[in-house]
Amino acid sequence: MIINWKNIALNIYNNIKWTISNLENKPTLWAILVWDNSSSIRYIKQKKKWAEYVGINFNLVKFEETISEVELLKQINDFNNDTNISWYIVQLPLPKHINETNIIHSISPEKDVDGFHPINQWKILIWDHSGLVPCTPAWIMEIFDSESIDVVWKVICVIGRSNIVWKPITSLLINAWATVISCNSKTKDVSKFTKEADIVVVATWQPWLLKEEMLKSWSIVIDVWFTVVDWKIHWDAETEKIDSAWHNITPVPGWVWALTVALLMKNTLKAHTK
Amino acid sequence: MIINWKNIALNIYNNIKWTISNLENKPTLWAILVWDNSSSIRYIKQKKKWAEYVGINFNLVKFEETISEVELLKQINDFNNDTNISWYIVQLPLPKHINETNIIHSISPEKDVDGFHPINQWKILIWDHSGLVPCTPAWIMEIFDSESIDVVWKVICVIGRSNIVWKPITSLLINAWATVISCNSKTKDVSKFTKEADIVVVATWQPWLLKEEMLKSWSIVIDVWFTVVDWKIHWDAETEKIDSAWHNITPVPGWVWALTVALLMKNTLKAHTK
Repeated sequence: MIINWKNIALNIYNNIKWTISNLENKPTLWAILVWDNSSSIRYIKQKKKWAEYVGINFNLVKFEETISEVELLKQINDFNNDTNISWYIVQLPLPKHINETNIIHSISPEKDVDGFHPINQWKILIWDHSGLVPCTPAWIMEIFDSESIDVVWKVICVIGRSNIVWKPITSLLINAWATVISCNSKTKDVSKFTKEADIVVVATWQPWLLKEEMLKSWSIVIDVWFTVVDWKIHWDAETEKIDSAWHNITPVPGWVWALTVALLMKNTLKAHTK
Repeated sequence: MIINWKNIALNIYNNIKWTISNLENKPTLWAILVWDNSSSIRYIKQKKKWAEYVGINFNLVKFEETISEVELLKQINDFNNDTNISWYIVQLPLPKHINETNIIHSISPEKDVDGFHPINQWKILIWDHSGLVPCTPAWIMEIFDSESIDVVWKVICVIGRSNIVWKPITSLLINAWATVISCNSKTKDVSKFTKEADIVVVATWQPWLLKEEMLKSWSIVIDVWFTVVDWKIHWDAETEKIDSAWHNITPVPGWVWALTVALLMKNTLKAHTK
């Protein structure tokens, strides 16, 4: 069975839309965009589209590609101090002359709906629910919820080592009482561990790393990312060959963005109503 | 073979002492103590003793047990702004009327030699070496260094789920390219995973949880903590019964404090010389 991301995303949007339709005071999301590259613009367009769909006011503030880091930090400081701005994001990636870490650290943790600030990342680690979870690990947990997959008692093998996906998802799963096996590219025999796992989360940017013979029956595969080789999309799991009658699997293209954006809207609503 | 903690601690102290003896400008460590319970006082005495041994100036500032949280936060703010104070610790535990999380968050991350501030915890997670590692996970890594145990390629089973030990040690090990299996009290068959592990780190506060038959040959056991039952010390691993010819093991009593304090001195020196 293939997990239907599209339905999960649409359910999230429609639930948010319904909740907001019953609110007198509608949430507003501000976004800072440094106008430099097509991927940032593509992401921000999706966010605007879905914010409007669910009823979140979306205010975009654009800066020229030439803005200096100092000037951008000053603008962020103004956003932090402006009582009219409750939540905002800074669209990544930023131009190369700006240090992204400095920018992420400068956003007020209370206004950080992307959940990137160290304080919010730390809250995930210590299982403090007052923070906001970054959108990629949040949608992985959302899939488990939507498909009624209880992670307690489960053995979950996570392959990867990235800061943005692997680390928060590992913290979230462990805090949810899963037994987590963390493999990376130096692990001697990955298949030994994937064969023991009820769920495999793969986020390696290594095309076709996970093959059917590495899985036990009835396991669930969450394939987080894909690589583009020769203009073709290659997933981390060899999705087409993995028998979908035996393994629940999430193919990546297209709707990964939809789920990430859906979780951003969910974070905004959570921040607004708490 | 039993890992000799005492020697490891003394080596650290003597190395620090030697380094400091060659410095013109000696480091100074400040400590805030709220004078309320014997364990805080016992810990601070050890820190004072070893600071003096290695040549770190140790300045203790004491407050009455009745100090309010607001007043303590004000004092910490003064410490943060005082350019004469480069590094300090706030001795834990604090009296019950003071929220420890608020206190930890208020310490300037640059002056936080305990490594407890979220920014420093987050730096461990993202493998940023500019931060300071909390002393308990730091001494576990120190044992691996001292005994020339290379964790790359190794399978390490960590049993526990605490914020102060388990989470930072898991991050440190994964960042050092180990394959980490994280078990907790809801793991169905812990021995299945401990038997696969080259190294087992146990920090559960469950007396005698880890038994010899749960280990494979030549594995290494790091026993982080002990419980006191009926005035007797019970380790997390059944240390006396685990064959020391086959398993390198660290028994806990006594010198755990020594290693924690040794790493605090190492953090102070690291902060001073960077």
